[in-house]
Amino acid sequence: MEQLGLNIQELEYIIEHAFREDIGDGDITTNNLVPENSVATASMTAKANGVIAGLPIAEIVFKKLDVNLVWKPFVKDGDTVKKGDVIAEMEGSFRALLTGERLALNLIQRMSGIASETAKYVSEVKHTNVQILDTRKTVPGLRSLDKYSVKTGGGANHRIGLYDLVMIKDNHIKIAGGIKPAVEQIRKSVPPHIKIEVETSNLEEVKQALTAGADIIMLDNMSNQAMSEAVKMIDGKAKTEASGNMNLERLKGVAETGVDFISIGALTHSVKALDISQNIIL
Amino acid sequence: MEQLGLNIQELEYIIEHAFREDIGDGDITTNNLVPENSVATASMTAKANGVIAGLPIAEIVFKKLDVNLVWKPFVKDGDTVKKGDVIAEMEGSFRALLTGERLALNLIQRMSGIASETAKYVSEVKHTNVQILDTRKTVPGLRSLDKYSVKTGGGANHRIGLYDLVMIKDNHIKIAGGIKPAVEQIRKSVPPHIKIEVETSNLEEVKQALTAGADIIMLDNMSNQAMSEAVKMIDGKAKTEASGNMNLERLKGVAETGVDFISIGALTHSVKALDISQNIIL
Amino acid sequence: MEQLGLNIQELEYIIEHAFREDIGDGDITTNNLVPENSVATASMTAKANGVIAGLPIAEIVFKKLDVNLVWKPFVKDGDTVKKGDVIAEMEGSFRALLTGERLALNLIQRMSGIASETAKYVSEVKHTNVQILDTRKTVPGLRSLDKYSVKTGGGANHRIGLYDLVMIKDNHIKIAGGIKPAVEQIRKSVPPHIKIEVETSNLEEVKQALTAGADIIMLDNMSNQAMSEAVKMIDGKAKTEASGNMNLERLKGVAETGVDFISIGALTHSVKALDISQNIIL
Amino acid sequence: MEQLGLNIQELEYIIEHAFREDIGDGDITTNNLVPENSVATASMTAKANGVIAGLPIAEIVFKKLDVNLVWKPFVKDGDTVKKGDVIAEMEGSFRALLTGERLALNLIQRMSGIASETAKYVSEVKHTNVQILDTRKTVPGLRSLDKYSVKTGGGANHRIGLYDLVMIKDNHIKIAGGIKPAVEQIRKSVPPHIKIEVETSNLEEVKQALTAGADIIMLDNMSNQAMSEAVKMIDGKAKTEASGNMNLERLKGVAETGVDFISIGALTHSVKALDISQNIIL
Amino acid sequence: MEQLGLNIQELEYIIEHAFREDIGDGDITTNNLVPENSVATASMTAKANGVIAGLPIAEIVFKKLDVNLVWKPFVKDGDTVKKGDVIAEMEGSFRALLTGERLALNLIQRMSGIASETAKYVSEVKHTNVQILDTRKTVPGLRSLDKYSVKTGGGANHRIGLYDLVMIKDNHIKIAGGIKPAVEQIRKSVPPHIKIEVETSNLEEVKQALTAGADIIMLDNMSNQAMSEAVKMIDGKAKTEASGNMNLERLKGVAETGVDFISIGALTHSVKALDISQNIIL
Amino acid sequence: MEQLGLNIQELEYIIEHAFREDIGDGDITTNNLVPENSVATASMTAKANGVIAGLPIAEIVFKKLDVNLVWKPFVKDGDTVKKGDVIAEMEGSFRALLTGERLALNLIQRMSGIASETAKYVSEVKHTNVQILDTRKTVPGLRSLDKYSVKTGGGANHRIGLYDLVMIKDNHIKIAGGIKPAVEQIRKSVPPHIKIEVETSNLEEVKQALTAGADIIMLDNMSNQAMSEAVKMIDGKAKTEASGNMNLERLKGVAETGVDFISIGALTHSVKALDISQNIIL
Repeated sequence: MEQLGLNIQELEYIIEHAFREDIGDGDITTNNLVPENSVATASMTAKANGVIAGLPIAEIVFKKLDVNLVWKPFVKDGDTVKKGDVIAEMEGSFRALLTGERLALNLIQRMSGIASETAKYVSEVKHTNVQILDTRKTVPGLRSLDKYSVKTGGGANHRIGLYDLVMIKDNHIKIAGGIKPAVEQIRKSVPPHIKIEVETSNLEEVKQALTAGADIIMLDNMSNQAMSEAVKMIDGKAKTEASGNMNLERLKGVAETGVDFISIGALTHSVKALDISQNIIL
Repeated sequence: MEQLGLNIQELEYIIEHAFREDIGDGDITTNNLVPENSVATASMTAKANGVIAGLPIAEIVFKKLDVNLVWKPFVKDGDTVKKGDVIAEMEGSFRALLTGERLALNLIQRMSGIASETAKYVSEVKHTNVQILDTRKTVPGLRSLDKYSVKTGGGANHRIGLYDLVMIKDNHIKIAGGIKPAVEQIRKSVPPHIKIEVETSNLEEVKQALTAGADIIMLDNMSNQAMSEAVKMIDGKAKTEASGNMNLERLKGVAETGVDFISIGALTHSVKALDISQNIIL
Repeated sequence: MEQLGLNIQELEYIIEHAFREDIGDGDITTNNLVPENSVATASMTAKANGVIAGLPIAEIVFKKLDVNLVWKPFVKDGDTVKKGDVIAEMEGSFRALLTGERLALNLIQRMSGIASETAKYVSEVKHTNVQILDTRKTVPGLRSLDKYSVKTGGGANHRIGLYDLVMIKDNHIKIAGGIKPAVEQIRKSVPPHIKIEVETSNLEEVKQALTAGADIIMLDNMSNQAMSEAVKMIDGKAKTEASGNMNLERLKGVAETGVDFISIGALTHSVKALDISQNIIL
Repeated sequence: MEQLGLNIQELEYIIEHAFREDIGDGDITTNNLVPENSVATASMTAKANGVIAGLPIAEIVFKKLDVNLVWKPFVKDGDTVKKGDVIAEMEGSFRALLTGERLALNLIQRMSGIASETAKYVSEVKHTNVQILDTRKTVPGLRSLDKYSVKTGGGANHRIGLYDLVMIKDNHIKIAGGIKPAVEQIRKSVPPHIKIEVETSNLEEVKQALTAGADIIMLDNMSNQAMSEAVKMIDGKAKTEASGNMNLERLKGVAETGVDFISIGALTHSVKALDISQNIIL
Repeated sequence: MEQLGLNIQELEYIIEHAFREDIGDGDITTNNLVPENSVATASMTAKANGVIAGLPIAEIVFKKLDVNLVWKPFVKDGDTVKKGDVIAEMEGSFRALLTGERLALNLIQRMSGIASETAKYVSEVKHTNVQILDTRKTVPGLRSLDKYSVKTGGGANHRIGLYDLVMIKDNHIKIAGGIKPAVEQIRKSVPPHIKIEVETSNLEEVKQALTAGADIIMLDNMSNQAMSEAVKMIDGKAKTEASGNMNLERLKGVAETGVDFISIGALTHSVKALDISQNIIL
Repeated sequence: MEQLGLNIQELEYIIEHAFREDIGDGDITTNNLVPENSVATASMTAKANGVIAGLPIAEIVFKKLDVNLVWKPFVKDGDTVKKGDVIAEMEGSFRALLTGERLALNLIQRMSGIASETAKYVSEVKHTNVQILDTRKTVPGLRSLDKYSVKTGGGANHRIGLYDLVMIKDNHIKIAGGIKPAVEQIRKSVPPHIKIEVETSNLEEVKQALTAGADIIMLDNMSNQAMSEAVKMIDGKAKTEASGNMNLERLKGVAETGVDFISIGALTHSVKALDISQNIIL
């Protein structure tokens, strides 16, 4: 699963836990009506246009139930599909196909929903160098999948968690006595290879963050004009991230201010599942 | 947490796993800038109208980080809030308030989003005896929270997983050789206290399910007129569930066919987070 | 293992934990005396008459130690054996055969003991429609195996745990203010597909339970005559369960009162192992 | 729990797992009928004569559900009780008392059953120096409790598992080429503080085991006369263990042969629960 | 434990696992000879000069065994001690003091050994701006403690693992077709906030790494003169790390080449425990 | 892995935990630069003279990452190698070879370091019957590997933990009121097959331990002359263990006093890694 940028142990953990909550003591309907050795073929079909994400994970879901299941994907993660396109076929244990269907769909529908939405944002700024970033507003327990889906849709990943990037926000600044002391204090504490981002809300704070040596400066809830000035002032000495209630409408204008990144919470906190169905082929 | 209808071990598991993915080796910003013993007060405020769900879980999130944190809710789960309403205040470790903020919000925003949407559906059918049900289309790993949220919004829960209700669908029927043999075969296999639901798509199948002794008959993707006839034919000898791409627009009509339940996948598969923010009070 | 009606994860968990307690740092005798690559053949033989349960689990035990072990069962779960019958042969790692012997026997002897005892009860009532039920009086940690064994012996399963059937007992009734308010209150709280059983100890309570809409009425420690009257009064509007210090002697009389179920705690709380031995074939 | 000779982590593990299988998503009856804050008093009463074992474990079971529950034991583990004796009273959460009842009773009834049976064997040989030993024929997952119960009934513990005592049996001897090479080979392999027991079935083998330097010699399925001769031949140079289908009837004769230990599989493989009931005191 | 820069869950995990391997079924000597309620006072004393690390962890070890134990440290982590200095006193359960002694000492002796050795290296370069870094050559399972100890001794931490810093080594460069394509390819793949380090072994490679935009350039096994030239060439456009069989003797010379970091594998792969003893005070 | 005298579950646990701390979300360098299907050959070479331990464990490390990797060892555990000797070659996934390298080396270097040091001690006493023992001064979490390494170097293992041998030390003696009461009290408490060791520091205590029936008598920090006298006094009625700040210099003299065992803490508490390197063969 290395090609996914996903941790296989994490995936196993997620899928096992999900099976435990869905299957519990067993799929009492299927186990009592479908003979153990019967086999079948099933297909997954897109019922709406979008970008597919999560196929290798759906494959793992079914193979957990039938280690010999044959998985034939017709597209790969990141591909665009249209309503009616067959996404994958699989042959194997009839029981596995029925018992695993809902978990596989729950995962691939959510992940494709995220990828599809991300792709819209990315498309909107493709005439610039802006990268679309996700946030930590992910579903608890599935951050790795959510972030993988954003990347599959063409976005890039903001910090994974509270541990891999310093992010100095307003409350941190207040308690440290200013942007400069905050940055200095933390530079002595974290390993030298960890970057420091500072949240700012006006040009004065931008200047302080720049002077303090921030690696990345977040421009939070600023007007496009203020962001343009900030980008000019920073002049490549730090990276810049536009943040705060972004939506598709205002995205183009923000991108054209020259910021490096735009982060979008809605990519993962309010997901519309991409409609995908599974059918047994008779 | 008994009052939640939630399993405390499950909750601990969810929260610990979520902290592990978010905090990892530590909140390197907060731990290095905020003194360990500093305390603060924070408030949670609704930024949109809706129904609140998840307050006791947010409380656990923070208490995991500060066992002595004081939690003062101003509303309780199931209450309706308006934009601007303060939901809760909490006093405790400044670090805990900052480190736990995102997980608490990720949970309460999703849960309140589900409850709020459910409440709209419930309101639409309140002139009937219909119960609004959820489905198994939940986020993997959070089914218990998703289902709790539906209940908090006034809905009822369909089966928890594949283990607590028999649900005989088209593929099961085919392989068993008909509705009657399917029901008979399974009645001998599952414990006597487990109910049997049969999926039907026309009146002929409804009749067979009824004759076979189904406890619940699902009317899948039927017209309102067909459902009305089915309800008449069944005449209280089994419960009835309307299912299939339900939405707010057609809900009223469906409810007036006399069915007992209407199940709605979108309640949990496409959730719009209710906007809630946390602020440190100075 | 679907055919077992057992959860494979649960089985893995049980066997791994059992190996941990038995093997610890290793079978120091076998590992130091038996060469790693030596192979052998062993047989399992019944040393008493009874019904076999647990063969597929014994197979898993040995395959955990030798993934290539060849397992040849001569009977299958539910079959009756006589003293001297060979139950299974296995060929594989000599070490695996010696190290796994005790755990395999501990499991299959207990399970076959339960199945054999259940079969006696079932046989006693085979002229009626009564189903013999187990209870929650199982060995902590092995409920799924205990209940599987009862089913293998011809019995049926009562609720798995506190979560899959409502069982309103005397203390619940007292605190709710009567049978009727108890049933009504709980009907609003649990999912619609969950059945409700009410414990009664006289005909007045039976009547109340019936009126309140109980799905199953437990007749606890009643005389046969009282049970006969209860069955008449209920007249098929609810299922009936006879309960309370049942034994083989009074079973027939109870069954003939017309109750649907008789539950027997002793099936699992006081188990006599069926004597089975393992021998290396030279 | 140190006084128990039990490992607290192991106990936690057993109880948590048992609660998971019994409670699952929650005690749906109690949680929906008994108010969260209501308290009650309950008592546990012996319904048969016997020796009590497992009281501290029952206490942990309830305290897991109500950390503030007051536990008042009237006897202690190892005490003899008569039918009707109150064993313990407890005050605390009404919910905890109802939800924990079955697990507490399942544990204490089995454990007291083992202790009571052991006490009968011990009493039968109290005129000698013989120690009654258990075996590895315990319920998978509960070995520590089974062995604790034997000790509570006055017995002593044979090896805990395959790791803490070398036990050279017939198959080991064959493959090693005799008793002497088996003992020599293993003496070089295991840590010097680990004892070596050799299984013998006749006086010739006893002699070989003695010469080879066995620490303990098992006399397996020998006649009382053969055992008397073996004890004479060994003359204190090794410990002796009588083994093989022991029962109460032949115990006295075996003990009088002068052996040091008699091991009894039935103490744990075929347990009759001691009848104990729990009542809410109004 | 936030002040430690350590993850509390990780610590719990380490200590529980370590207790499991050391205590197993129980400290059979102490539990059988020391009454459960007896209390005692103990002291920890340095038997050699050094820098202390691990006191808060030793405290947790004992508190796991006696939650009420009183812990009185006389120094704090990072303090220098001389042979004979008392490090801490503790009052509490006599059993806890005896059972926990070895694990507490095993941890604090190793950690103080690492801190003491690190301090020697740091002292040797204190006239420069060089930071002494650790490596991934830590004891499997204790990386967090090893790295904490280096920091306590005055060093800084290199990457925690393979996930928080890109480190492009010779084999990566070969397969990517050169330093430039390697850096470019990876820049597109990892989140923007993750830094990239490139391993170089001569000035030509240094130049390529610089041109490719490496954030950190490792100078591997270079002569001091080559490193001086590399530092000049890089001229602050990237950070520099000297690496390769460093020892105390050549450290000063390396530091004076102007590199930013020197990484030392021996700090953690070959640790000499600092001698510390525990005594019961009578 | 039985031939290792190691518990396979324990090994899996150690390696999985170690991978989790080292790999985390993934080897971001290798996964992004090395194609998933590329294969390579690597060799492990000794860079110093010593005794190899840990080869089968290194093999497991790599096979965890590439189940089809071909492992070709040129020596086996316990073999002596010289600087420059190739220890093993392996062919398999290029990614696996790079990602697993550090963990494999961290394990085999420490284990070989322990075995090499042990071999020096064993060699020093080979003219006597003395066995060199390890202690409980091992790295927390790796005791099984540390003790395996000592055995591989020719030593023997002292008790595994606090559970498999009674070790009565000064504090136990004081609280029990003397050596005799301590031994008597514990003999009644522990299973009959568990040995009892008593720590003594002078001949008077040796005499008491002997009279009390100790199985092993530890001679702690005694002069060689006192140990000679103790050995004479004990005269084979108990085993003897010399202990206390042993080193290579005084070892021979101690061994010649006639003691059975000499235990050496430094074998595991202060380990110098044996230098071993891994290279990709082009």
